[in-house]
Formats: sequence, C-alpha cells, structure tokens
Amino acid sequence: MASTKLQGIFTPNIVPLDTRGEINERELRRYVDWLIDKGVHGLYPNGSTGEFTRFTADERVRIMEIITDQVAGRVPVLAGAAEANVRETLRACETYYQLGATAVAIVAPFYYKLSPRAVYAYFKEIADNTPIDVTLYNIPMFASPIDVPTVRRLAEECPKIVGIKDSSGELPHMMRMIAAVRPSRPEFSFLTGWDAALMPMLLIGCDGGTNATSGVVPELTRKLYELTMSDQLDDARTLQYDILRLFDTMIYSSEFPDGFRAAVRLRGFETGIGRQPLSDDQHHDLDSLANTLQCMLAEHGFTDEPICGCPIPTTGEAPQDVTRIVEAVVAALKQRGLN
Amino acid sequence: MASTKLQGIFTPNIVPLDTRGEINERELRRYVDWLIDKGVHGLYPNGSTGEFTRFTADERVRIMEIITDQVAGRVPVLAGAAEANVRETLRACETYYQLGATAVAIVAPFYYKLSPRAVYAYFKEIADNTPIDVTLYNIPMFASPIDVPTVRRLAEECPKIVGIKDSSGELPHMMRMIAAVRPSRPEFSFLTGWDAALMPMLLIGCDGGTNATSGVVPELTRKLYELTMSDQLDDARTLQYDILRLFDTMIYSSEFPDGFRAAVRLRGFETGIGRQPLSDDQHHDLDSLANTLQCMLAEHGFTDEPICGCPIPTTGEAPQDVTRIVEAVVAALKQRGLN
Amino acid sequence: MASTKLQGIFTPNIVPLDTRGEINERELRRYVDWLIDKGVHGLYPNGSTGEFTRFTADERVRIMEIITDQVAGRVPVLAGAAEANVRETLRACETYYQLGATAVAIVAPFYYKLSPRAVYAYFKEIADNTPIDVTLYNIPMFASPIDVPTVRRLAEECPKIVGIKDSSGELPHMMRMIAAVRPSRPEFSFLTGWDAALMPMLLIGCDGGTNATSGVVPELTRKLYELTMSDQLDDARTLQYDILRLFDTMIYSSEFPDGFRAAVRLRGFETGIGRQPLSDDQHHDLDSLANTLQCMLAEHGFTDEPICGCPIPTTGEAPQDVTRIVEAVVAALKQRGLN
Amino acid sequence: MASTKLQGIFTPNIVPLDTRGEINERELRRYVDWLIDKGVHGLYPNGSTGEFTRFTADERVRIMEIITDQVAGRVPVLAGAAEANVRETLRACETYYQLGATAVAIVAPFYYKLSPRAVYAYFKEIADNTPIDVTLYNIPMFASPIDVPTVRRLAEECPKIVGIKDSSGELPHMMRMIAAVRPSRPEFSFLTGWDAALMPMLLIGCDGGTNATSGVVPELTRKLYELTMSDQLDDARTLQYDILRLFDTMIYSSEFPDGFRAAVRLRGFETGIGRQPLSDDQHHDLDSLANTLQCMLAEHGFTDEPICGCPIPTTGEAPQDVTRIVEAVVAALKQRGLN
Repeated sequence: MASTKLQGIFTPNIVPLDTRGEINERELRRYVDWLIDKGVHGLYPNGSTGEFTRFTADERVRIMEIITDQVAGRVPVLAGAAEANVRETLRACETYYQLGATAVAIVAPFYYKLSPRAVYAYFKEIADNTPIDVTLYNIPMFASPIDVPTVRRLAEECPKIVGIKDSSGELPHMMRMIAAVRPSRPEFSFLTGWDAALMPMLLIGCDGGTNATSGVVPELTRKLYELTMSDQLDDARTLQYDILRLFDTMIYSSEFPDGFRAAVRLRGFETGIGRQPLSDDQHHDLDSLANTLQCMLAEHGFTDEPICGCPIPTTGEAPQDVTRIVEAVVAALKQRGLN
Repeated sequence: MASTKLQGIFTPNIVPLDTRGEINERELRRYVDWLIDKGVHGLYPNGSTGEFTRFTADERVRIMEIITDQVAGRVPVLAGAAEANVRETLRACETYYQLGATAVAIVAPFYYKLSPRAVYAYFKEIADNTPIDVTLYNIPMFASPIDVPTVRRLAEECPKIVGIKDSSGELPHMMRMIAAVRPSRPEFSFLTGWDAALMPMLLIGCDGGTNATSGVVPELTRKLYELTMSDQLDDARTLQYDILRLFDTMIYSSEFPDGFRAAVRLRGFETGIGRQPLSDDQHHDLDSLANTLQCMLAEHGFTDEPICGCPIPTTGEAPQDVTRIVEAVVAALKQRGLN
Repeated sequence: MASTKLQGIFTPNIVPLDTRGEINERELRRYVDWLIDKGVHGLYPNGSTGEFTRFTADERVRIMEIITDQVAGRVPVLAGAAEANVRETLRACETYYQLGATAVAIVAPFYYKLSPRAVYAYFKEIADNTPIDVTLYNIPMFASPIDVPTVRRLAEECPKIVGIKDSSGELPHMMRMIAAVRPSRPEFSFLTGWDAALMPMLLIGCDGGTNATSGVVPELTRKLYELTMSDQLDDARTLQYDILRLFDTMIYSSEFPDGFRAAVRLRGFETGIGRQPLSDDQHHDLDSLANTLQCMLAEHGFTDEPICGCPIPTTGEAPQDVTRIVEAVVAALKQRGLN
Repeated sequence: MASTKLQGIFTPNIVPLDTRGEINERELRRYVDWLIDKGVHGLYPNGSTGEFTRFTADERVRIMEIITDQVAGRVPVLAGAAEANVRETLRACETYYQLGATAVAIVAPFYYKLSPRAVYAYFKEIADNTPIDVTLYNIPMFASPIDVPTVRRLAEECPKIVGIKDSSGELPHMMRMIAAVRPSRPEFSFLTGWDAALMPMLLIGCDGGTNATSGVVPELTRKLYELTMSDQLDDARTLQYDILRLFDTMIYSSEFPDGFRAAVRLRGFETGIGRQPLSDDQHHDLDSLANTLQCMLAEHGFTDEPICGCPIPTTGEAPQDVTRIVEAVVAALKQRGLN
C-alpha cells in the first residue's frame, strides 16, 4: 500500500555463466553480495543488460529465485518480467511477487513494432491484473516506443503502474514525461537507463537510474548520484565525463553487453562467455577491449594495470580509436533502428 | 542429399485460437487442408505472420506437430525455428527434423541489434550443427539485418544453408544477393516475403515467396506466381496491383497480423482473437476493416458482400482512406525502425 | 497544348567544368551531342546528378541556355527549376519556358523537412502560376517526401502538373502512385530515377526514367529500356544486373556524383573536378575507382582496358570490395536520412 | 588576434517581411534594437530560424548589412555564411568580415549527404582561406552530420575554426565533442541550438546557445542562462520546463519557423507571412497556434490575454493537444530524416 518510491541506482546485472553456458549460481550470489556491499540502491535482474531474451522462461525464473534469495530484503529488487504474451507476463508477475520482488519492469512489446494504442492496451491489461507494482520500460532502440501521451494515460488510469525506466537517453523526452505525469502522480518514479546522461537527467528531475556501469564500477555510479543530488556540480561533472568514457568503451566496442561482461570479469568475477556466438575477429577484439578496460579501471585503482602496461592516461577524453569506433557504431546502430 | 530447391509460394500461416486463446487444433488442421487444396506450394509455420514470438517454446513445437501431421508430406514444410539462443534453436532444428520438416527458417537475432560479424557467427554455429537444411530469414524491420557480404560468406561456407527469405521488399537488395551467391550456389533459393513486390521479384530472379496473402487468397497468390513465371505479364501486372491493394489494406490498417487474421475468418475459419491486446478503438477499427476486406474478397467472388453493401468497385486503386492510412502507418513504422 | 507524354530515358547530365571550376561550355555542347547521338530520349539538366545546388542561380540559367541552344529541338528537355522560394522558382519556370524547355522538374523543398500539407501548398502555388508543364520530383533521401495522397491531390487539381520523377527506388511506392493517379490522369507520366530498378519499374508500369547511367553508357540504358518494353525479359534481366553493378560502383564508391563524373571522363569528355572538395584519401580512392570503372566499361567495349590490366571478368557480380563498400555506404546513408 | 570566446545567448533572428514578401528593413532594425535591449548576448542572422535558404544570395548580404549597421558593435554578430559552394561561401566570409561580423557560422553541406571525409575537406578548405573566424554548424536533421572525429581534427588543424554550434540536442554527443576538443583548444566554443536542453547543456560544459526562443522571450532565455551559470538550479529547472513547453509549442505546431514568426508578432513586430506557402488548413492552425502562444506569453506578462480568454494555467505541462501534436510531429520528422 504505502509503497516506497523507486529511487537511486539500480544495477541491471549481467548473469555469470559457467563453462557449459549454464547460470553460474555461486558467482551470481557472490556478485549480488559485492554489488550491495559497494552501495547500489537496488538490483534489476532480467533486464537488457541481463540478456533476458537469451534465457528460457524457466531460466528467468531461476535467476530471480537466486537473486531474491541472496538479496534477502537488503535492497529492493526490480524484476524484468516481460514474457511471450500478456498471460505469460502476468504469470511471471505472480511468481516474482511471491518471491518478494519490490516491483517488476516490463519492456514494451518487441519484434513487432506496435502503435501507441496497442502499447497502451498491453500495459493496461497487465496493470489491471498484476499483483505487483509495474514499472514501464521504454527502450525504443530495441522495442516498441512508449510515447508521452501513453505514459500519461497509463499513469492516470493505473495505480499499479508506479514508474518508468527510460533508456532513450533523450533529455527533452524525459522532461516531457515528467511534465505530463508528475503533477497528478508525484510519487511516480522516473529512472534513466542511459548512463551517458545520468547527471543531467538527475538535474532535470529524474529519481535515479538503472545503470549498467553500476554493475562494473558501483562505487563511481553511486558517487555520481550522490554528488549530483547534493549539487556538487564540478565534481559530478568530472565524474560524469569519466563514466561516459567508460560507458562508451563498454557499449560501443563489442556486441552488447559483452563489454560489460568483460569489465565485470576484471572486477574479480567468473562471468563466463556470453551466449551470442562471436566471430574469431570479434573474440580478438574483445581481448583487446579487456585490455583497454583494465587500464581504465586501473586509473581508478579498481584493478592492476595489465602486464604490458597502459598508455599515458588521457585527460578526460576517450582513446582516439574508441572515438572512431563510437562514431561508426552509433551510425550502424542508427541504421539498424536505434533511434 | 539431393534436396529439392525451395520454390513457389509458401504460406506463412496464422494460427487459429479458440475462445480461451489456446491453439485451435481443429481449425488449424482444417485450414492446412484448405490451403493445400487451394494450391499453395508449401507451408511456413512459426513465421512472423504466425506470431512465433507470442507463443511459448512448447506451443511452437505443438504447432509444428499438428502441421506436419496434417500435411503428411503433401507439400514441403519450412519451419520457423528461432529460439532464445543457439542451443535452443538447435534443439528446435532437431525436433523439426524428426517431425519431417523440409527445412527450417531462422530469423536473425532480434531485440539486440547485432553487427554483421555476430550475425555471421550466429548462423555459422547453427549451420555447423543442424541436422536439417537452413533458410536465412532477413527481416530488417524487426530483426538484425543480414547484409549481402554475410549472405555470400554463409552461402560459400555452409552447405546446410540452402536459401534466404528476404522481407525487406527492396528489389536492388535482392538482386545484389542473387548476383553475389547464385554463381557459386546455383541451387540456393531466394524467396521474397514482401507480397507488394512479388511479380517484379520473380521477374528479376527470385524462386518464390513466403507470402501472407497466400493465407487469405491462395488462389490469387498462386495465380500471380503462375502468370509471372510464364511471362503473361499483362495479366500478372493487373493481378499484382490487386494483391498490392489487398496486402496494403491488411497490413497497414491494424496491428500486424490482425488484418490477415480477420481476412482468414472471412474465408470461413474460426481464427479467434489475437494475443496482443487492443484498445477499444482498435477493436472498432478492426470491425470496420473486416467490412472493407469483405468487399474486396467479394469482388473476386470469395465471399458475399456484407449486408450493408459495398462502395462501387474502384478501378485498381485503394479506397481513399486506406491510401491515407498506408501513408501514415508507413511513416510511423519507419519511425519505429522499419526501413 | 496537346503536349506529348514524357517517356523514355532522360539523361540527368553532369556539367563539365574547366580547370578554373567554371562551366566548360565547349565540352558541355559536345557531351549533349554525344548523348543524343547515342540515343537518349531526352535531357534533364539541373537535376541532382547535375549538382544544381552547387551552382549559382545565374549559372543554372546559363546551363539551360547552352543546353537548349545545343539540343535545338532534337529531343525534349526537362529542366530542373527549383530555386530558393516560389517566386524565384516561378521566375526560372518563365525563363526556361522562353528558352524552349519541354517541361520543368521541381524537387520538393529541401533543407527544412516539410509536412505533406506544405509540400502540397508549395506545388499548388507553382502549378497555378507556371507557364510551363511541371514534373514533381520526389527524392526523399535529399528532400521533403511527396507522399501518395499529395501526388493524387496535385494530379487531380493541377492540369499543369504532368508527371512525377521518383528516385526513392521503392517499387510498391511507385505502384501506389500509379494506382492512385492513372485512372483519372492516364497521360500523367511516371519516371523512375533509380537505375538499380529500371527494368522492374518499367514492367509494373513506369513510362521511363531519368537515369544517371544513361549519361555514362547511354547505349546500355537505352537498350535496357527497349528490351524491357518489348518483353525480351531474359536479355533485359542480364543487362539490368550489369547496369546495377555499374550503378552501385559509381554511386557508392565516392561522393555523389563524382563516380559518374569519373566515368563520363572515361567516355572521352573533359569533365573536370567537382566543386565539392575532397580529402587526399578521397582523391586517391577516386583514382582507384576510375580504374575499376575503366575495366567495367572495357568489358562492353566502350574503352580500352587500363594499362595495368583488369581482373578476370566476374560473372555478373560486383567486385568483392565494391560489395562491402555498397553495404557500408548504404548503412551510412541510411543513418544520414536516406531511406 | 585575441578574439573573445563566443559565449552566452545568441539570437538566430527571423527576418520580418513586408506585405510584398520583401525584407522589412524598418521592422528588422527595430527588432534588433529590442533584442539587444532585452539582453541577448549576440545575434545570429542567416541561420536556420532566419530561413537563409529561402532568401537569394543578394538578400542574405542585405540582411547582414542591415544587422551589422543597426547593431553597430553593441553585441557580437555571428553570421550564417553557407552558400552554394566553397568559392561562394568564401566570398560571403569576405563580405561579412568587411561588414564587421564577429565570426561566421557555416552549416555542413546539405541536400547531398556527405561522408565525414568530405565534410572535413569542405571545412578545411574554407578554414584555410577565410579572413574571419569560423564556427562549425552541426544540424544533422537538415544537413550532413559533423561527427566527433571530424570536429576534433578540424579543431586541431585549423586555428580559424573557433567553435561549433550543435543543434542535435544530444547531450552525450556534446560531451564527446567537449572531451575530444577542449583539452587542446580550451578557448573553442560549444554552443547548443536546442533550447529544450539548454540548462543541462550548460551544466555539462557548453558556453552558451543560439536559441530561437531568445528571439521570442529574450528575457527568459537570458535569465535561464544566468540562473544556470550561477548554479541556482531550482529556479533554472522551473524555467527550463517553461521554455521547453513554449519551444515545443512553437516548433512542433507548424512548419518551422512559422511558430516563432507568429510569436515574435505577439511581441509587437510586423513579421509578415513566411515565404513557404501553406495550405488553407495550415493557415487556420497557425491562427489557433497564435492564440495558444498568446496565452503562454500572457502567463509571463509579455502580452495581454486574447479577447476570448485562456484556459486555466496548467502546472508546467503542455496542453493535452500540444503533447499529442509533439509526438506526432516528432514521429513524422524522424521519418523525414530528423534524428
């Protein structure tokens, strides 16, 4: 009833896999403990970073069982609950409710690109039948977009819908949603999934974020949140540029989320190899990326430098090659439907 | 060993549902018989028209069991086999091979947008381990695109890959694929999934199509194929314009594939209500669409006119309102990543 | 009054420049004669291939003076007449009418992206005041799109609008326009500007094309038109694949239209260097492209092979590197708003 | 030599037209005085808001003559100087230098979509020959994009290039540019052209903006700049939401920049009718928009309410219908190449 507003930094955690490609329960539990120790405000399993589409329905439930059991109420758990259709999604809502999740996050239907009216109808039917609070999840690069009038209408009609996670990264879009919803639903939560703009998003009124960098450098993402919320803008700005550099390097230098998987490994976890096959040259690039990431993490004292050393630390800018890669990949992603 | 080239018109069949939303086995069997009687060259279950993503993994297998059992070898069956990851997809390949499918069609990974290198690696791993022939399925509006160099490389390296189904609808793209692959793999099959361009696609060298209109008016789609392949161009052209009008009306006037579901109902099958919830006004629009479709089908003698009558038959052009809707929806789809 | 329908192959000619970057009148006249001798049905100066935006308003008039004088009524001239605003455009219409142009082609407003209503209003105002017949020019990759309902409305309301040149290359879009307009305006002309699909466009009802390849290999583009219109489909298909290969090589291997400029030079004209500056590596790439083009033209006997020889002729497919370049550039163009 | 860094709010002014559609010199001079009185830091004639493409080359010079004469050194003038080709652009640079402009802003080549290499070559040739400082102008929705590596390279090689105006509105993109350039060129200026994100842009390091709202409510845009730069974040945030609402209403409810033209009229200037023709229903919509804008301006005391009154002031959110229009237009613009 008196549910607490979702706020702060939620980690969309990757799922460690063992050598056979199965869920590595031991490492997943260890990773959960570490994230909580390092200060993240909550966990967000079965999100995009968690590769929910690459697991079976049974595996998604298993991941939630492990995580809720390990978290044991220490922090809120926002559970990704999108399944093949409304009935299956509601079944997952029920299950995760029983497991003690705080709320679920449900991505708009994907593969097919639905109109705003159908996106509305989808969430309305879920909201009318779910036992657990629902967070909308807007990620237009991967799924049908949830537009502002739809968010407003759902917020007005559905008390069970308590927030939105938006990964579009567009500041004005976030502001339009906040302007449309907050007057009538002040407790509605706005979370950004785009680490590259976390500081400005918080400054224009977001309540927090579900940020993949917090799975790699929870200390920094949490600190960026604290600095920003306490108006220490100069320090926050410097840190936001650091996180942008790290985020860009992880997200644009490999297939998503392999860069994050590689970085979590550098923090001491057996993350295993992702389920999406890679070509030989992609495996090679991933090794080279791991080296770059190790240097970045070493700058902050989170790892040792690699044996072969690192280039002289640059002053806030990404390595030249990363910059070019970012451009090329942003271009390619756009072509493939990413904004 | 000496597998026959995939050619002709394959129906990407919808799946009739009963009043509880479950697979309506009786109607599905009746529908399969009807399609074969009306002359389609093959069936293509668990495709995009078949809403494979809205069924569970178990349901997808069940659909294939019903269809292969009912077809009983009368026509080839091309089975949609994409699952959550390579291992699950290979499991489906094995199952469908056991069930007697002719080949499988596998859509490129979706949700995440993969680079050409990862798309290559995905299909390479499948091709190296599948017991059954594989058709690539390129549908860039919904899934990671399969580009020409990737098709060429896979065709050269993987004998188990025997064709591609392309739903981009881009003539020059199809020609580039044919130019790149046919010299070294003359038996490789090129199928178009875009009914709006079936005649010209066949004229520049396609072997056939997986065409959703063939699930509604199998007589016409089959006839268009025959007329085109026998160079009866004037008649083919007239028919292609008719099919374009019907196709546009079904695809752009509702959420895909509800227009096709409504039209199959008009041919006498209990198709049920789709699993994607619709808003009240969408239900209303769907009723009105059914009326429009009934008039179109009545023009060809496939149904009676609706009780309230039809407008004077137009001469080859879509109704004014449909034209506007097509434009609006094409615009909206493009915004959502289509084309 | 009884104007003849625009049909056949119109050449959107490039403009030869001298060493100071000025219009090379002598070569332009010689080029016009050569094109007419080689059989093109008409000329289309000040089009996109003619780089109309890179000339001043005075230069555009000068180009038209030279061309109408040199053509001297031998073939129709379709004059690109888009200027800064409606008043300036109408002034150009008047001037080109006085010069004896057959009709003008007016691209939809560009830079700003206008809504269909404003596109309509723009052409309506022109059509109501022009002394010369107008062809709409739809090139959505560069300018505001002209959608089907707008084409239909303009065709119905404006007798001065006598055709449309469409460079989108989308078959179904062309068919939708033809279906919407031809019943009420049978003499309305539909021309395609996309050489890659010329044969199928003609087969579904186009009247001809404004095709940049006809400025390079007028013999072939004209022959493709003849073969297709006389239903010699096998020969037409083979030639269409050849032209696609040449077209792709010219359009995707350099900044547009430098590939065409280089190829026209190989046919014996001093085309000069384009006005858009190139980087050093682009100049180098252009030299290498000229070599590739020379080999392609030599295959058809239009030039000698380059001194260093050519690779073994491939069988209908583009060179490997060209294929990759096409993909990369198509991707990049899409990101930049193309298609 | 010791040029001052471009910073603060520059007004991309519209150009008042008289009843014959000619430049209204008297109103333009009065408007310039008013803008300076109201506190804008500089003027930016011949920008996108100034509809530079809809004037002739001679008119663009005339506009600059009027403005530099009227400004008379009171504030810096950043002059839009893009012409048909490099030679014409350099001629404009020379002219505006003679007229006393502070710097020029040059949009990347448009109509044709150029590759990064050609965009580089274009600006390099200009920078090597210009007598006046140059600001790059990146507006990917209308012109070839200027990517981060290109900005970096130009900043490193060309001392005459002193800043960039970016209208993409993407925060992370701006941050990547700042990270890439500022270490080596600390005096390089970063200006945002996207009023919807002015506050967050300033907070992550921008030096100012060229903001069309400052032509309508210079008091507010200037105040937002001051509040943000002095870290009065709560007040700044409230004002940013107000400006977003006004900006959205002006930009998305009509053809750009007619909404701004209508609003400037409400501030007391004879702005005249724009040069782009409108349909009858667009004229009607524009009247209704003027009413909405009058109410918004009346809330701030800048105008009286319209005679027929205004709706009860909303609390920070846009009127319902505006929200829907924004969504629809954003969608349509995206389809037409925006973002």
